[in-house]
Parts: sequence; structure tokens; C-alpha cells
Amino acid sequence: MSGKALLAHSGGPTAVINSSLLGVVAEARKHAQCKGLYGARFGLRGILAEDFIDLFAQPEELLRSIGSSPSSALGTSRLEASHADLSRILDVFAAHDIRWFFYTGGNGSMGTAQEIHTLAIARGYELQVVGIPKTIDNDLLETDHTPGFPSAARFAACAVRDIGADNLALSNQVEVVEILGRNAGWLAASAALARHRPEDAPHLVYFPENRLKLNAFLSDVGRVYKQYKRCVVAVCEGQLDENGEPFGADVRTGSRGSLAQNLAHRLALLVTQELGLRARSEKPGLLGRSNGAHALSSDRAEAYACGSAAVVAAVEERGGNMVTLQCQRQPYVASTGLAALSKVAFLERTLPAEYRNAEGNDVTPAFLAYAAPIVGEIEAYPRFQ
Amino acid sequence: MSGKALLAHSGGPTAVINSSLLGVVAEARKHAQCKGLYGARFGLRGILAEDFIDLFAQPEELLRSIGSSPSSALGTSRLEASHADLSRILDVFAAHDIRWFFYTGGNGSMGTAQEIHTLAIARGYELQVVGIPKTIDNDLLETDHTPGFPSAARFAACAVRDIGADNLALSNQVEVVEILGRNAGWLAASAALARHRPEDAPHLVYFPENRLKLNAFLSDVGRVYKQYKRCVVAVCEGQLDENGEPFGADVRTGSRGSLAQNLAHRLALLVTQELGLRARSEKPGLLGRSNGAHALSSDRAEAYACGSAAVVAAVEERGGNMVTLQCQRQPYVASTGLAALSKVAFLERTLPAEYRNAEGNDVTPAFLAYAAPIVGEIEAYPRFQ
Repeated sequence: MSGKALLAHSGGPTAVINSSLLGVVAEARKHAQCKGLYGARFGLRGILAEDFIDLFAQPEELLRSIGSSPSSALGTSRLEASHADLSRILDVFAAHDIRWFFYTGGNGSMGTAQEIHTLAIARGYELQVVGIPKTIDNDLLETDHTPGFPSAARFAACAVRDIGADNLALSNQVEVVEILGRNAGWLAASAALARHRPEDAPHLVYFPENRLKLNAFLSDVGRVYKQYKRCVVAVCEGQLDENGEPFGADVRTGSRGSLAQNLAHRLALLVTQELGLRARSEKPGLLGRSNGAHALSSDRAEAYACGSAAVVAAVEERGGNMVTLQCQRQPYVASTGLAALSKVAFLERTLPAEYRNAEGNDVTPAFLAYAAPIVGEIEAYPRFQ
Repeated sequence: MSGKALLAHSGGPTAVINSSLLGVVAEARKHAQCKGLYGARFGLRGILAEDFIDLFAQPEELLRSIGSSPSSALGTSRLEASHADLSRILDVFAAHDIRWFFYTGGNGSMGTAQEIHTLAIARGYELQVVGIPKTIDNDLLETDHTPGFPSAARFAACAVRDIGADNLALSNQVEVVEILGRNAGWLAASAALARHRPEDAPHLVYFPENRLKLNAFLSDVGRVYKQYKRCVVAVCEGQLDENGEPFGADVRTGSRGSLAQNLAHRLALLVTQELGLRARSEKPGLLGRSNGAHALSSDRAEAYACGSAAVVAAVEERGGNMVTLQCQRQPYVASTGLAALSKVAFLERTLPAEYRNAEGNDVTPAFLAYAAPIVGEIEAYPRFQ
């Protein structure tokens, strides 16, 4: 089979999604049957509007520079494809003789990829659809972790370490740090990598996999504050209270109608009101996925490998799959594999129970053993003797 | 005069306050009349409690490592000295034969330094009090800028650039980024250094020196969104509305009883409610002063020079002064000077009118000419052609 290839991004950008693009371009160039490689501007929107970039025509130096920059240079989208959209996408593919489709995203995007794959079969249109894993939330099944997660985890850990150093210097204050991750506690858990000594931040880590009982939270904070005269809390943006309700949600955003919580602020307010302690909240927010300073070269390399492996899978006519990362630890060795789109589509891998302690306020050693090799060492700051 | 020296930190930590400490230690070691150098743990609290570290006894390697770490390794305090505290401080100085006092802080701290200086004279106690400038807010008079500001300004600019790259990739969203600075717009203004092209973030910058009229804000956001299908707003944490009231303040914190605003969240909520646009808020908060990743080596070097110059001033019996930075631009050359404590004590240098545009929603070229040489180039991310 020969024809053109199309790459599209989906969902929130990461620090390394451009590296996957670079891997796709480099590998696609090696295959003569690939007659062209387009990049869709702004994800599905670009496909529907036939708004493409000719990726083979981009200067090598620019591509390399983009490959080491955070965020998505192609643009991305949260658009959820309707039946009409899916049909239109196949029409566009046929009009441009697109035979290889690479879709970089999370579990929802893999669902869309699966739908496009199925529709192409139903229409008898020869198409290799291959998913490239991407999400800072690390909530995809079948892969050791997702490209983008290690860099975002490193940011979370460094942020909590740095805010912890500030909290130690001033003391007499409670800090609530809100961390990305939606409904999955992987990134919040990663904040624990900042802790080198028992008294280090974070003192408490909460996961959206558990509902947070307000009394337990206040009791935890009070106990830590009594011991250390300070407290740093890491909490995932998707944390719900004991009734399954968000904390202080009052902004309705986006097409999904999702509620933007006012989580960390609300928790700081409760600490002040109920415990009478000085409390602040910090919400680095999207900086946690878009910052370049904490992007890991290992994460970039794995993202690149996933892009490259996607092209190889398409060449080998193994469409209908998503590329996965298969990793050994001690020593850490990563390689790519494939998993059927149907096994990952629309499924969320939340933080397993064995990675959360019984009290629901910290990680377990098993989590640290999982995460440390992919996030790298978070250097401790020195202290006077 | 010979005797011992004492160094204490005051107010919020910065990324380079430890470099000033290193400068004090290195210079003090050169002077035989300096019989010892103490560091007070947790600022004034440490003086009152006679909780000192022997800085001359610290291993050289540890000192160097601390000198390049963010936050305050000594610890610091926001304690405001009462008359009784001031008297006690002089008693402690006399008990330990402390003849040189170095106080690293902002304008309030320089006020305390001035009070200690005056009380020592009144008591006839020989004491050289020298202030070392330190504040990310850059709101000290008599100095070109304050150590700590350049690194925090770089963080603010990089954060807005990175969130801007994310905002561009997804588009169709308004981002409100809350930036440190209390009542002074220096750091919010510095976010403008992220902008390389007219369409780059930040699209709007607001300063606490101007009250923010809600209608003007909404009109600005609506106009930018119409033009670019997105908008990134940089706003200083101390921004007040047209009535001089905080936005969404509901957390009363600290001994000063200051209100913690819920500023960025509140503004995002208003954008959603009034303009019907998807909006988010990000509040990196204390990460803006405590992060190590964006600390500038030039800022460290200037902080070190201020610490060193403070010791020289004390040796030359020029107490009652604060060290200043005197800078030329084109080419950039910095040197230290001295200014009377009385000229800086309790006085706030806010962002001058010539650095704010007439509409109050952006900086002027004059600000960029001031800030760029001390903050350095903020590299733009590449884009497809």
C-alpha cells in the first residue's frame, strides 16, 4: 500500500508531544511508499477543515527546534467527533489519498481512533490507524506510562519541593498545592518524589481515587502542623469531597460543561476557618504541562520512539493499534509495543490501590519504585547543620 | 572596632537570598576584626530567642551549595518588631558582643533596621547596621532593582510564555494568570517580556497601580478574543477593582489580617459569566519566588555582591545605610552603592506611570528597556511556517 500519511494531535498539549511528531516525520521519511505527510492544524478541526501543514516540506532545523519545544506546534483540539464528523473525516482522507492516520492523544482520542478504524473497515477504505499515547495524566491502559507524564510529574515534584522550601523558611503556614491529573492521582502522587526526609514536603498527598472526608483532611493538617509548625498539602485537581461533590466549584467551562473547581483555595479557606491557621493555596495549573524547564530528555526520547514506532506499525499494516511503552526497572529499559485500540479506548487507568496508603493521605513505597526511574531524582536542597 | 557580626533574613524568601548570605560570609572572613559571624534562625524570631548558627563553622562545600539554592536556608520571618522587641534585640546584641548587624529584606525590614540603628545610637551602643536589599517585588527605592526580582521576573515571563503556548495550541480559551508583586506591578509587567510577536501572550497586563474597571477588563478580553480566538491575561495579585476592593477575597490570613484574594479565579469566573467564554485561571503563587529552575546567575552574582558590599560598609563604619545596585544599560554594568536607611524605610516604589500604557493594560517600551537587560532574553518557541 502507498499513499499519504496524516498526523493529528488531540487533547491537552504536553512538554513532549512535539517530540512524537518529530519521530513520526523522521520515520515516515524512510519509507518510499509514504508519498507525503500532513499535519492537521488544531486536531480534528484541521481535518474537517482540510487545514494541513506539509510536514515533509518543513526545514530540518525548524523541525528539530520544534521537537524540543513544549506544547503542540501543530495545534490540538478537544472536539469530540460526531457520527457526521467521522464520516466527513473518511471523505477527507479519501479525497487526499490518506492511507496512514496517526492520532496522538489519551483514552478518549484512542476511542475516536478506534471509531475511524472501524468506519474505514466498514467502508472498505484501506487505512492504517495507529494511536500514539500522550497524556500527562498517565491514565492510559496497556502502557507502562504515557509520554508527557514523566515531565509533568517532575514539574509537580519540583514545584512541591520548591514551595516546601519556602514553607520551611517562613514556617507557621499551611500550603495547599493543586496538581493536575483530572480523575487520576498519578501526578499528585508524583509530588511525593520531592520528599527526601520525613519532615520534607509534601506532608500530605490526596488522590481523587479516594473521596476526601473534610474531617479527616482537617485532622491530618492539624496533626502535621502540630509536629512541624507548617504543612504542605498536594491535592489533585479532580479531588471530590465525601459526597462526591467538587470543592468550591463555580465556573462552568467548555463544551463538556465541566466544572472548574476552586479546590486549593477552598481547602485553604477551610483550614483557616476551622483550624485558625494561616493558609495559602497555589495552583500552577497548566504550567504543569506546558513548561519547558522541567521537560525530561528521557521523556522526549520515549515520545520520539512512540512516534517512530507508530509509522513502523502502519508500514507493517498493523493498524487498529496504539503504541505502548514496555519498561523494565533495575536497570530501567524502555521499549515500544502495540495494544489494540479497543483495549484502551475510553478506558481510564486510575492510580491503583497498592500505590495509595491505607489512610489515603500518602503514596506507598511501591509507587515510588514505579515512578522514580521514569521521573528521575529530585535533588534535595541543602540545609545548615 | 571589633566584635561579632549577625546576619538575619526578613520577609518572603527569594531564589537568591542565600547568595547574599554567601557574599556576607566570604567578605566577613577577610576581616580580622570580625570575631565571629552568626546567622539568626528564622529572622527576628531567632534573634529574640538567641537561636544562632555559627556561619564561620559551616563547611565550605555546604555553604557553596546553599548559596546556589533557592529559598532561605537560615529561615526568615514576617515578625514586626515591637518596641519591647527592639529593646530585647539590643540586649541580645550586647550580650553576644554583636557590633555588625546585616539585615536582608525589603522596605519594611529596612524600617526595622533603621529603628535598631537609631536605638543603638540612643543607647550609645556601638553598632553598624547595614541593610541588604531583597524582594521579588522590586519595590525598594534608591536601587536600580532588588536582588531576587530578576529571577522572579524571569519566572513570570517564562510562565506566561509557556501558558501562552498551551493557550495557542488549544485556542478558544481565556487564561488569567495571577502573578506575585503585592501592591507593585513590576512582576506583572515583566510578563510582557514573553511577547515576541504582537499575537503572543500576554495579550493584556494589568497593574495594581491602576484600579481595574470591570467593564474595561471585559471589553479588553472580548476584543482580544475576537481578534485571536484566545486571550492570556497577566494580573498582579494585589490588583483591586474600581472601588478599591479585592476580587473575591474570602481568606483572612496571617498576623496582619491581610485578605488573600481569589483574584484570577474570580476574573475567570467573570469572563465566563459575562462574556460566555471558556476561561481558566492559573496561580503559580509562591512558586514564582521559590523555584530554582529560573534563577538567574546574574541575579545570584548581584545578590552576592550586595552581601559582600554590606560587610565592607560595616568595616568602613558606614552603618545606617542599605546597599543599592547602580546599573548602566547598553552595555549593562552593575555596581553597588549605599543609601541611607531613612531614605528607603517603609517606602514603596511602585511601577512608575511611564512604564504603564495609557489604557492601563500593557507596559511601555520604556519598561522593556529597563527590564530586558536584567531579566535576559526569554526565548520564543518556534512555529511552523
